[in-house]
Amino acid sequence: MQLPAGFAVVRERARPLPPDDRREAILDAVLPVLRERGRDVTSRELAEAAGVAEGTIFRAFGDKDSLLDAGLQRLLDPAPFRGELRRIPHDLPFEDKLAVIIEALRVRFGDVFQIMRLFQVEGPPPRRAQAGEDWLEIVRELLEPDAARLGVPIDTVAWYLRLVAFGASIEPFNHFRPFDSAELATVIAHGVAVAPR
Amino acid sequence: MQLPAGFAVVRERARPLPPDDRREAILDAVLPVLRERGRDVTSRELAEAAGVAEGTIFRAFGDKDSLLDAGLQRLLDPAPFRGELRRIPHDLPFEDKLAVIIEALRVRFGDVFQIMRLFQVEGPPPRRAQAGEDWLEIVRELLEPDAARLGVPIDTVAWYLRLVAFGASIEPFNHFRPFDSAELATVIAHGVAVAPR
Repeated sequence: MQLPAGFAVVRERARPLPPDDRREAILDAVLPVLRERGRDVTSRELAEAAGVAEGTIFRAFGDKDSLLDAGLQRLLDPAPFRGELRRIPHDLPFEDKLAVIIEALRVRFGDVFQIMRLFQVEGPPPRRAQAGEDWLEIVRELLEPDAARLGVPIDTVAWYLRLVAFGASIEPFNHFRPFDSAELATVIAHGVAVAPR
Repeated sequence: MQLPAGFAVVRERARPLPPDDRREAILDAVLPVLRERGRDVTSRELAEAAGVAEGTIFRAFGDKDSLLDAGLQRLLDPAPFRGELRRIPHDLPFEDKLAVIIEALRVRFGDVFQIMRLFQVEGPPPRRAQAGEDWLEIVRELLEPDAARLGVPIDTVAWYLRLVAFGASIEPFNHFRPFDSAELATVIAHGVAVAPR
């Protein structure tokens, strides 16, 4: 190859990632060990999971607590859960649809409770201002095809689903009698049907 | 009055209460301040509420923690709540009966949560082996007159009532949309009615 005058071929040095990308790459790599170990994770476990030296992690995040905070944010991120809800087929039979929503909510609540326990978060999980509206928007779209059979607004159904799923997700509360998502879907489906018997 | 030979009238000296009665009397007197102050209560507040010297309290209970433990037991005692449920008229309309049960459960859950907070009890409240069976026994008696309209066993209705009341009692969870006991009663009443639509 004939290079233009003034150019030469040199071996390009591996350039370090920009700081934000580097942090994201480390987070991606350590997320599984964070999910398992929570606040008890050691710097060594983190470095091993990320395949870098401990010093690299500390340089990227400042300190271990900042990494733990960023990890907690990622683990509580509702986006994957919402994506899952949005993929529920809109033409599923009404009661089945409710059962799938309740089951997804229970998995999500269970997940959040476990992460909070592992990260020793006291009190309720951090709440984002938009969370309620986002939840309603998803359920409205999902239940729109069933609107004619409802005796209450879709939003009300959304809150009932959340209510029963929440209680059914708290392990110690379900000691006496655990609930099945399909049976709860039946209760809600009949409970919100148009024209009470 | 002519006394029989060998008897004489004497002024009877005020006898000290037996230790158990004394402890109960102190507990009765300090319960309101315990309910308000929980673990933060001072010995002085306790003595003032009981109208005795601090030393008398310590002699009766050994130490402040023992008094606090005994007070916690009394505050969590389910007997008054159960008495209240047993006084619900059995001939109330079905849905109204469910609403009254849900409301009573919510008051009780709210009470238990507050007491646990004030006494800094971590995790679920102490559970007695018999609690589930006691709860079922009360609801069976209350809903027996409505058995014919139910599409599920009375026990199942009992657990559904407890489930919705529990979720509706946890304040941070109800931030987006609080529930009314009557509306929850409607959902359950229609949800458990015989022959699903």
